[in-house]
Amino acid sequence: MHAPQSEPIRLAVDAMGGDAGPAPLVEGVAQAIQAGLKAQIVFFGDEAALRPLVAAHPVLSSSEVRHADGVVQMTDNPIQVLRRGQNTSMWAAISALQNGDAEAVVSSGNTGALMAVARKLLRRIEGVDKPAMTALWPTNRGRSVVLDVGANVEANETQLVQFAIMGEAFFRALTGKEKPTIGLLNVGAEELKGHELIRSAARILREADPEMAFQGFVEGNDISGGKVDVVVTDGFTGNIALKTAEGAARLVGGWVKEALMASLNSKLAAFIMRRGLRKLRSRMDPSNANGALLLGLNGVVVKSHGSADAKGVKSAVEMAAGLARKPFREEIAETVRKVNRRAGTGEANDQQLGDVKAAVV
Amino acid sequence: MHAPQSEPIRLAVDAMGGDAGPAPLVEGVAQAIQAGLKAQIVFFGDEAALRPLVAAHPVLSSSEVRHADGVVQMTDNPIQVLRRGQNTSMWAAISALQNGDAEAVVSSGNTGALMAVARKLLRRIEGVDKPAMTALWPTNRGRSVVLDVGANVEANETQLVQFAIMGEAFFRALTGKEKPTIGLLNVGAEELKGHELIRSAARILREADPEMAFQGFVEGNDISGGKVDVVVTDGFTGNIALKTAEGAARLVGGWVKEALMASLNSKLAAFIMRRGLRKLRSRMDPSNANGALLLGLNGVVVKSHGSADAKGVKSAVEMAAGLARKPFREEIAETVRKVNRRAGTGEANDQQLGDVKAAVV
Repeated sequence: MHAPQSEPIRLAVDAMGGDAGPAPLVEGVAQAIQAGLKAQIVFFGDEAALRPLVAAHPVLSSSEVRHADGVVQMTDNPIQVLRRGQNTSMWAAISALQNGDAEAVVSSGNTGALMAVARKLLRRIEGVDKPAMTALWPTNRGRSVVLDVGANVEANETQLVQFAIMGEAFFRALTGKEKPTIGLLNVGAEELKGHELIRSAARILREADPEMAFQGFVEGNDISGGKVDVVVTDGFTGNIALKTAEGAARLVGGWVKEALMASLNSKLAAFIMRRGLRKLRSRMDPSNANGALLLGLNGVVVKSHGSADAKGVKSAVEMAAGLARKPFREEIAETVRKVNRRAGTGEANDQQLGDVKAAVV
Repeated sequence: MHAPQSEPIRLAVDAMGGDAGPAPLVEGVAQAIQAGLKAQIVFFGDEAALRPLVAAHPVLSSSEVRHADGVVQMTDNPIQVLRRGQNTSMWAAISALQNGDAEAVVSSGNTGALMAVARKLLRRIEGVDKPAMTALWPTNRGRSVVLDVGANVEANETQLVQFAIMGEAFFRALTGKEKPTIGLLNVGAEELKGHELIRSAARILREADPEMAFQGFVEGNDISGGKVDVVVTDGFTGNIALKTAEGAARLVGGWVKEALMASLNSKLAAFIMRRGLRKLRSRMDPSNANGALLLGLNGVVVKSHGSADAKGVKSAVEMAAGLARKPFREEIAETVRKVNRRAGTGEANDQQLGDVKAAVV
């Protein structure tokens, strides 16, 4: 059951996991509310540290702080956290979601541990093999979603198909676009390119759901080119593509900065075009793309980057709140069911065909 | 046998394969010679088209034109080219290398066909499983080499190890650096990250050749960060990483251009800082990174981008000529032999250990 739209969204925030401690988390939440977000916040973590931070923001006066002793460290092994992490702020925040005490979770903590705890407490959406992690990707045309960017290191064809289904529903929930376009990341756009697994996933996607706007293969440069709304790939390739693009953008950004600081002339030029540069800086700001959904679970868990600043946390908080009451999980369950049923029918036909062949022989 | 250093390098140029026909090829070669390259050029292709182009450049007066009827099209299937492509300029250029009539080849033609014909005529270096395609990658610290960027879609651990050996020798030949550093591209730097295959390749590399400066795993952002000289990955991941970075750089470049053209003020600023911008433009110019070596074959075949302009062709020609007499192929054969022998010894030890165990039982 979803709460009525008019009530503020109840958001659980794991305030302890980030690289810089709770300050950017609290500050980011405050910025989101300042900007108009209607949410009832519960911060989980060290009460003594959190109380004064929260008290410093009048917009957080109605928020709650719930004490948790433990903190998941960035270096903690997810399996250890599963075994002994019940006292951590991360665990407590996800428990609140599990109990219906919150409608979404935001955490800047250890990704592997977050995935492990979320999988354990929330379970996967029925029919979904593996959860995936999404990335928002700035493009020529706005933004696209890329998944999986690292929840798993491998994916078979069924899982790639499910990533497509999940990514489509997620993009719709995020943007309202009725029919997001989907592409499968490959080394070339032609049907014969790539390895067998990816060609097989493309075949399934072409037939699986005629209502889905599957555009076939896309190449690496098509991601930033904005060729499709949803780019599907395995977590190994997706993680490397994402970090490689970040590295390339940072390199070019560094060159631009150098050009702007090279001489007195260029510093003068930078001053003259400061408005254009402000827009450029804002476009290049990774804060705007912060927020990765752990997609495929029974609940909205948004991972904020470990080193996200308050502005980045704000983006992640807004994403979590925006998704909390969208029906994308029901859509995913339904489409996966439908595609499995069709695949099942296909298998039945093969079976019948086998019987016929056997009868003929 | 290598020709003495003083004699000009004999370079075979497939002048027909590029997207824009022979003009940028001839022009690019002329630019390289103008810039000081000592080379004896043989252009292969349509004589009627080539003669006037070559005649227009006095620096090409001593170059040869050899007629070839056929042209490999970008859409041609490599297998068809292998069967019926003997009359093409691509085939003729690689044949010249095979016959000792040339010391290196440059082609802007169909990559798959070039790889297929080169493999057939030149054969692999002894002990090398699969050839790989290299990319020059601009970084914070200069440039790195990434391989494989698309010669194969899959690579097992032995092949990844061989890519490392080949990339190291290639980087040394290219830059003169005695001990290039090597990293294996993965989703995290920790030893436990990634799938079994890549962890196993890392184990082999750690032990295979103690003289090799293997730095373990690197992540996507480390490529542009210049963390290592040689980044090793399979052709699927490498191709996607390369094109994704190109796309990201183009996106940021477009934003910068937009900022510079946004208003009269910014146009004035662009004029004031024109020198810095010239440097920025040159750094971002893909022509400088043009030239991919088909590494692992008995011969130097450099692939120039299909859409490379004359400046790009110049880079590819200089790379081919620079590599023609470097002993990197001998180094590769020797290191592969050594690593195989060590692996062989390892197996023998395991075998002996097995015998001992069996005897104990």
